[in-house]
Amino acid sequence: MATVWHQWLRKSIQSSSTLRAVHTLKVDPSQPMLKSPPLISLDLPDVWTSNVMDFDPPSIGECSNERRARVIDGKLMAEKIRAGIAGEVIRMKESIGKVPGLAVILVGHRRDSQTYVRNKRKACEEAGIKFAMAILPDSCTKDEVCEALSSFNGNPSVHGILVQLPLPDHLDEEKILNLVSLEKDVDGFHPLNMGNLAMRGREPLFIPCTPKGCIELLVRSGVDIMSKKAVVIGRSNIVGLPASLLLQARPNIPSPPASFRIHWKKFVQRHHATVSTVHALTSNPEQITREADIVVTAAGVPNLVRGTWLKPGAVVIDVGTCPVEDPSSEHGYRLMGDVCYEEAVMVASAITPVPGGVGPMTIAMLLVNTLNSAKRAFNFH
Amino acid sequence: MATVWHQWLRKSIQSSSTLRAVHTLKVDPSQPMLKSPPLISLDLPDVWTSNVMDFDPPSIGECSNERRARVIDGKLMAEKIRAGIAGEVIRMKESIGKVPGLAVILVGHRRDSQTYVRNKRKACEEAGIKFAMAILPDSCTKDEVCEALSSFNGNPSVHGILVQLPLPDHLDEEKILNLVSLEKDVDGFHPLNMGNLAMRGREPLFIPCTPKGCIELLVRSGVDIMSKKAVVIGRSNIVGLPASLLLQARPNIPSPPASFRIHWKKFVQRHHATVSTVHALTSNPEQITREADIVVTAAGVPNLVRGTWLKPGAVVIDVGTCPVEDPSSEHGYRLMGDVCYEEAVMVASAITPVPGGVGPMTIAMLLVNTLNSAKRAFNFH
Repeated sequence: MATVWHQWLRKSIQSSSTLRAVHTLKVDPSQPMLKSPPLISLDLPDVWTSNVMDFDPPSIGECSNERRARVIDGKLMAEKIRAGIAGEVIRMKESIGKVPGLAVILVGHRRDSQTYVRNKRKACEEAGIKFAMAILPDSCTKDEVCEALSSFNGNPSVHGILVQLPLPDHLDEEKILNLVSLEKDVDGFHPLNMGNLAMRGREPLFIPCTPKGCIELLVRSGVDIMSKKAVVIGRSNIVGLPASLLLQARPNIPSPPASFRIHWKKFVQRHHATVSTVHALTSNPEQITREADIVVTAAGVPNLVRGTWLKPGAVVIDVGTCPVEDPSSEHGYRLMGDVCYEEAVMVASAITPVPGGVGPMTIAMLLVNTLNSAKRAFNFH
Repeated sequence: MATVWHQWLRKSIQSSSTLRAVHTLKVDPSQPMLKSPPLISLDLPDVWTSNVMDFDPPSIGECSNERRARVIDGKLMAEKIRAGIAGEVIRMKESIGKVPGLAVILVGHRRDSQTYVRNKRKACEEAGIKFAMAILPDSCTKDEVCEALSSFNGNPSVHGILVQLPLPDHLDEEKILNLVSLEKDVDGFHPLNMGNLAMRGREPLFIPCTPKGCIELLVRSGVDIMSKKAVVIGRSNIVGLPASLLLQARPNIPSPPASFRIHWKKFVQRHHATVSTVHALTSNPEQITREADIVVTAAGVPNLVRGTWLKPGAVVIDVGTCPVEDPSSEHGYRLMGDVCYEEAVMVASAITPVPGGVGPMTIAMLLVNTLNSAKRAFNFH
């Protein structure tokens, strides 16, 4: 079975041409659905791609609202959470005269990294969280990065430290990330945090922001995770791995902000989903995904997950945010998720849009982690 | 769906009586198979049980050998590995005048713990590995355990330290295990080891012995794991969790013994199975398990996995070793696996027996971990 799939994979890869953006991919219910895109990278782990872009998308007729999935509005939820954090920061300032602080290390001049950092700075400023940044040139040495890190590690007004990824090739990401103080690792990428997240009866100091945001989206949407069948597509350290761990057995979260108490009550329980992890070398990803009540997809491949991949009524959390060229948009590109939205919306019961779904929640969770870290440092409840 | 299953569960639990051993559970192909046992502990995470023992087992007719699964002989494989280790220990002694050392801390007088420790001591002695032990009374304090641990941590002739579990209730297992030196954590239970096992691009110093033994059984039996669908039943820190991580993406193993080089070459590659984790709160465990090419079961529930749970041709690794009363046996009890062996052997293509499957491999892997630890300490290759 695997061999057949792999042969088909190889053939598809050979016959596929370059990726091009589909500006409006819609579905005509009278037309047969496109075949699901094959997954490549037989030898390289988890570099996915899709050749669906080589087809002209079918046009769509009007469809009734009743048949469309509920849209999970991550932007709105994130705004509420950020307002709650701002309130907590004010309470902290008024009580003990301190505020949380987040520090970011940005190496080089990648446009996307600059955008992400700008968004984080803006979110911090709006919530009253102090923001510090070290900007280093592309050509900087490991020692220069370490020096900046060490300075933030030792600074008592910094409670969270982020190294904006990816780093230039000449810098060893693992070695640099290992130097972030465990107590300030608001990204939750330290292996000790990950081990404590994975193991029952242990609690990590921080949970990675994106998967934490995915669970929050599910819980706040009233989705019951207990005993549900969940498929996580992708197994990155940043999203796929922690998302599958969280869906299965969510640990307690220390010190939730007071304003979230009600939500956090639901959040604290273990979720006990039955989780399957689908990756680029999975034999029948479409079939496995179609069995899931909850699909969290983090492959970074536009339109990987077609309508045919989904069980009717499934809940879909789309973590993919792939920039694709789009001359008609303001910046010359736009973001696309892993999920073929216009197909999925006809099959799923609820779905996150891209943008406006997981992205805003990731930043909100970063602020939550920073706030919790500051509370821990100041022993403030 | 979950509700229906749970109602059935509750009903089954209420109607079930005490567990009693089935001395010879065989299947008559002309009889319908027994219904799979329900899983209990709706509220307590992963305390499984089974009421299958309340049925009288059907008798079995003769069946041809052709239809029976190949038996994976863990005892034989373990013997070969232990012989290889003994050779390596001799080489080490002749080259640098040193041998590996394993230290065990045994608290209390549990009979099963004493048996396990005795087996470990015997295996060490046969392989030429120095064995040390601290025996503490049931009533000992945390400080006394810590003192013993600290002494082994600081002893340069000890390369592996085991705290025999379970500890008496008054001792905090997590706190005590956290004190084992990372460099001597041959059980691989430290969260930093587990995080490094879970994360791609990272390597743990030690991999937990039982799941490591499961993978070794598969690889040495010529089972191709790549892209196969695997189900792990159970999600304990000791077996289920690391087994699912290993099946999905096995990291490199540092310093394999020279005599294993050929096997280890196959071993070093990542396995890339598509893994689903089934647990006590899973909705349709039978259906999910029946889709798997490889089943690793570590629930500790005799006869949980019936023949109907298995896909024809599946490979079954049975980690369960539950002692059940058996007046006819020498010690008054015998070990039973999670799998209803006589049913499974008619469906699976290969299966491990209990005893004689995973158990011996666990001890062999403990010796491998201790040897590797000593090699690392002495910088001996």
